[in-house]
Amino acid sequence: MRYHRIPDETIRRLPVYLRGLLFLLNQEQYISSRNLADFLSVRDSQIRKDFSYFGGFGTPGVGYDIRKLIRQIKKILNLSVFHKAALVGVGNLGSAILAYPGFRMYGFEIAAAFDNNPKKIGGKINNLRIECVPFLRTLRRRKISLAIIAVPRDAAQQTADALVKAGVKGILNFSPLRITVPKKVKVITIDIAMELARLPYYI
Amino acid sequence: MRYHRIPDETIRRLPVYLRGLLFLLNQEQYISSRNLADFLSVRDSQIRKDFSYFGGFGTPGVGYDIRKLIRQIKKILNLSVFHKAALVGVGNLGSAILAYPGFRMYGFEIAAAFDNNPKKIGGKINNLRIECVPFLRTLRRRKISLAIIAVPRDAAQQTADALVKAGVKGILNFSPLRITVPKKVKVITIDIAMELARLPYYI
Repeated sequence: MRYHRIPDETIRRLPVYLRGLLFLLNQEQYISSRNLADFLSVRDSQIRKDFSYFGGFGTPGVGYDIRKLIRQIKKILNLSVFHKAALVGVGNLGSAILAYPGFRMYGFEIAAAFDNNPKKIGGKINNLRIECVPFLRTLRRRKISLAIIAVPRDAAQQTADALVKAGVKGILNFSPLRITVPKKVKVITIDIAMELARLPYYI
Repeated sequence: MRYHRIPDETIRRLPVYLRGLLFLLNQEQYISSRNLADFLSVRDSQIRKDFSYFGGFGTPGVGYDIRKLIRQIKKILNLSVFHKAALVGVGNLGSAILAYPGFRMYGFEIAAAFDNNPKKIGGKINNLRIECVPFLRTLRRRKISLAIIAVPRDAAQQTADALVKAGVKGILNFSPLRITVPKKVKVITIDIAMELARLPYYI
């Protein structure tokens, strides 16, 4: 499912709102846009505007029904169904990602992990057996259409190429390299140094 | 230095533009807002609007001077001066961060690393000696005002408290926990699962 005419920036922010709402779940039933904005450290006008693209889910004087809002945002973000993701690169970063506790909350499972180090292949981390890289080609058959790239910089592009060839449609890229993929594939890059570069403005 | 009345969302995007411009540096001298937008996969109207908060740096018909634009954005983001950052938590994620190649490009140095594991304390990673956590209190004296939290979830809040006490003004938090700090301290959280949650909308 895909709502049209929603700005990319709104789509970028919805997971941030969702994350906050998941923290609030089981604490309260309703929240005003102002309180939600305070909780998330954003402007409440922005929240109201972002929600307005979907018709606005709040009740005047009562606020937003947290549980309902979570359901709606998940639906918009295509998170109502369970997604399987593959991890490529089980070095320090990859191992940290495999141990990351938060995926299930958003409806994800890291269902496959790949590395090219013979010492790692066949071993298990968090009950997941590490496979060798040529097995990436099995992803399509296994209905895994999301992947996380945690390989060294020099291997990032060829990894992306192999993932695209295997039918992967969305990539979370931790390599500081700029990777090139066909337009139909969505890449989100997390550049740790760039994220750090956001802080000095505020200090 | 701090420019006023610049929307937070613009400040959030400037490092993204900077990252792209750093890739283009040494390739071209000028770039149009349209070509820059294509390169960054954003709308050119957004780039023009974001740059307009600083008076707009482009020349009609010629475009933006890449080198000059980098200098201006760095100045706005307070990246013209060198910053030292501390890392707390040298597990898998922390080790990956220490090995990350991109910090210097933005003017950062990871100048200190801390862990509470006796087996790690005193050891070296990338020429950096791992210190024990109580030494966090030396950060103020060492003029380290940025920090990266890469500790297990249960230790995140106490780590943040210790950092704030040591005079840290900006924190990059990799823990999925929501950490609470005084208003004067800026926290940016990278929640890997939340980032992955941005992809299914596009697939």
